[in-house]
Amino acid sequence: MKAANEILVVGSVALDSVRTPFGEATEALGGSASYFAISASRFAKVGMVAVVGEDFPPEHRALFESNGIDLSGLETAAGRTFRWRGEYNVELGHAHTLETQLNVFSTFHPKLDDRHRAAPYLFLANIDPDLQLEVLSQMRRPRLVLSDTMNYWIARKPDRVLEVLRRVDVALLNEEEARALAGETHLVRAAESLLAAGAHAVIIKKGEHGALYHSHEERILTPAYPVVALTDPTGAGDSFAGGFMGLLARLDRADGEALRQAMACGTAMASMAIEAFSPARLVETEGAEIESRVRSLHALVHYDLFPMF
Amino acid sequence: MKAANEILVVGSVALDSVRTPFGEATEALGGSASYFAISASRFAKVGMVAVVGEDFPPEHRALFESNGIDLSGLETAAGRTFRWRGEYNVELGHAHTLETQLNVFSTFHPKLDDRHRAAPYLFLANIDPDLQLEVLSQMRRPRLVLSDTMNYWIARKPDRVLEVLRRVDVALLNEEEARALAGETHLVRAAESLLAAGAHAVIIKKGEHGALYHSHEERILTPAYPVVALTDPTGAGDSFAGGFMGLLARLDRADGEALRQAMACGTAMASMAIEAFSPARLVETEGAEIESRVRSLHALVHYDLFPMF
Repeated sequence: MKAANEILVVGSVALDSVRTPFGEATEALGGSASYFAISASRFAKVGMVAVVGEDFPPEHRALFESNGIDLSGLETAAGRTFRWRGEYNVELGHAHTLETQLNVFSTFHPKLDDRHRAAPYLFLANIDPDLQLEVLSQMRRPRLVLSDTMNYWIARKPDRVLEVLRRVDVALLNEEEARALAGETHLVRAAESLLAAGAHAVIIKKGEHGALYHSHEERILTPAYPVVALTDPTGAGDSFAGGFMGLLARLDRADGEALRQAMACGTAMASMAIEAFSPARLVETEGAEIESRVRSLHALVHYDLFPMF
Repeated sequence: MKAANEILVVGSVALDSVRTPFGEATEALGGSASYFAISASRFAKVGMVAVVGEDFPPEHRALFESNGIDLSGLETAAGRTFRWRGEYNVELGHAHTLETQLNVFSTFHPKLDDRHRAAPYLFLANIDPDLQLEVLSQMRRPRLVLSDTMNYWIARKPDRVLEVLRRVDVALLNEEEARALAGETHLVRAAESLLAAGAHAVIIKKGEHGALYHSHEERILTPAYPVVALTDPTGAGDSFAGGFMGLLARLDRADGEALRQAMACGTAMASMAIEAFSPARLVETEGAEIESRVRSLHALVHYDLFPMF
C-alpha cells in the first residue's frame, strides 16, 4: 500500500525581500520548503511540515494547495512568519544577508503525524541538525532520505551535521560547506573525506558551475544549465533538491541511470527557479518544458565516444 | 598531397619560474607554443614557428625533437630567451605575474617558409594580433585556424583582435577576455555577441569550470576533468588548444561529432598538463592514457535520456 504523500519535506517557509541587479521583490514567498515543495510537486505528490505566523498571506497557502501540496503539516503559530532580507551583487555568487527575523521559526519543532511518518521519500531541508535527527527517528521506513545543511550549523554543531550525513542516503552541501565540514579545499578530496566519515553519498553544489554527485558506486558531474534570463539565485539549491528527489520518487528508483537523470532534473529545476523572484517560474512549468530543458542540457554535454588512436 | 606539417603553431617559447602552493619550478620550459606543440604532438605532426635566445637549453630543443616537433621555424636570435616569473595563490584561479622579460620575443617576427605556409591546421597562440594577421595572410589554404589572445591585446588593439576573430575558424578566449571583448558579463550573451561581431565559433575557457563552444551550428559545454593531483595551472589553456586541434587534425574533420570529442580531448590534455610543472606530464602521456581520460570524463557527464512524464 502506498503512502498518501510520496515526498515529505521538513524545512522553512519564509517571506523574502530580495534585491538583485535585475530587480527586487518584497515579502515574496520564500524558504527552503517552499522552493523544494513546488519544484518536487512537478514530479510527485508532496507534503510539507513547516511553520508560518498568523500573518502568512492566504494566497501563498492557496498557491501550495493548487500545486497539490499537502499542508496538513503546515502549522500556524502565534506571531510573525520567518522573514529574510538580502541582496546579490553583480557577480551573483553569494547572497548578502541584510536581515533575518526568525520569528515563529525560532521555536519551530516539526510535528509529524502518522501519514508523514510513512512517507517513502524525505527531504530534510536546512534546519538545526538536532531537529533533522529528531525527524529521522520518527520516520517509519523511508526509501530515500536527502538532507541539506548550512555553514551556520557546520560551525556550531559539526558532529551533529556529520551524524545526519551518516544517517541519510544523500547529503547536499555547497562548495564552502563541503570544504568546511571536510576540512579539505579540493572538492573531490572533500567528497571522498565525507564518504570516509560515513556519508553514503554527497552532492556538492557549485552554483553556476554545476553539481557533483559522489558515492562509492557513482560519480556524476552535471554542469549548470547556462541561463540567460537570470533574475534571482535565491532557492536554486532547494529547487535542485526538488527536481532531484522529485524524479527519484516519480520513478521509485535510485539506480545509476535514475540518479544521472535526477541530477539533470535538479539542474533543470534550479535553472528555471532563478529566472524569476520567488518560486513563480516553477509554478508555471510542467512536464513538457522540464523534459525539454533536460534534453537541452543533454545536447550541450553529450558526446559519443569513438576510438582516436 | 599532404603537407609535411599537419599542424603549425606560431607563439612563444619561454623559460618559466613558477611558484604554487604545491612546489616551484625555476627556468622550466614554458610558453604557449611549447605547451600547445607537445599537447598536439600526441595526436598529429606539429611544426613550430617561434623564437628563442642563444641561452635556450639544448635539452628543451631535444625534448621538442624527440616528440617529433619540426623546429625548422624555431629561430635563435641574439640575446636571452623570453622569461616569465609568476605565482599562484591557494585558490589557483589566476597567476600573479612577478616579472616578464620579453627579451628576444620583443622583436619576434614570425618567418614562415613554404612548408609552414602549406600547413592545413594552424594555431595562432597569444601574440600581437597584427602578427597573427600577418601570419594568416601568408598561409596558403589552411583547413582550420584556431586563435588565442589575451586581455593585454584586447585592451590595446580591440579592433585588431576582432579582425582576427572574423578571419579564423575558432577563437579561444578565457572568461575575462570574452567579457572584455564583448562588453557583456553573461558568458552566453558574450559568446552570442562575438558571433554577431563576425566570429565563426568561439571557445570560452572557464578554467576549473570547463569550457563552452559556441557557433551558429553547435553549442557544447564541457566541464573540466576533476583533477586531484593539481600542481601548476600554467599552460592549461594552450594544452587544451593542443588536444582540441590535435584531434581535429588527426581526424581531418570538424563536424559536430568531432568537435564534441575534440572538446573532451582538450579537457583531458589540460587536466594532465596541470598535474606537473612545465609540459613534463604531457611528454609522458600517450594514446591509451588520453583515451582513458576522455572515457572517464564521459562516464562522469554522460546520461541516457528517458521519458519522465
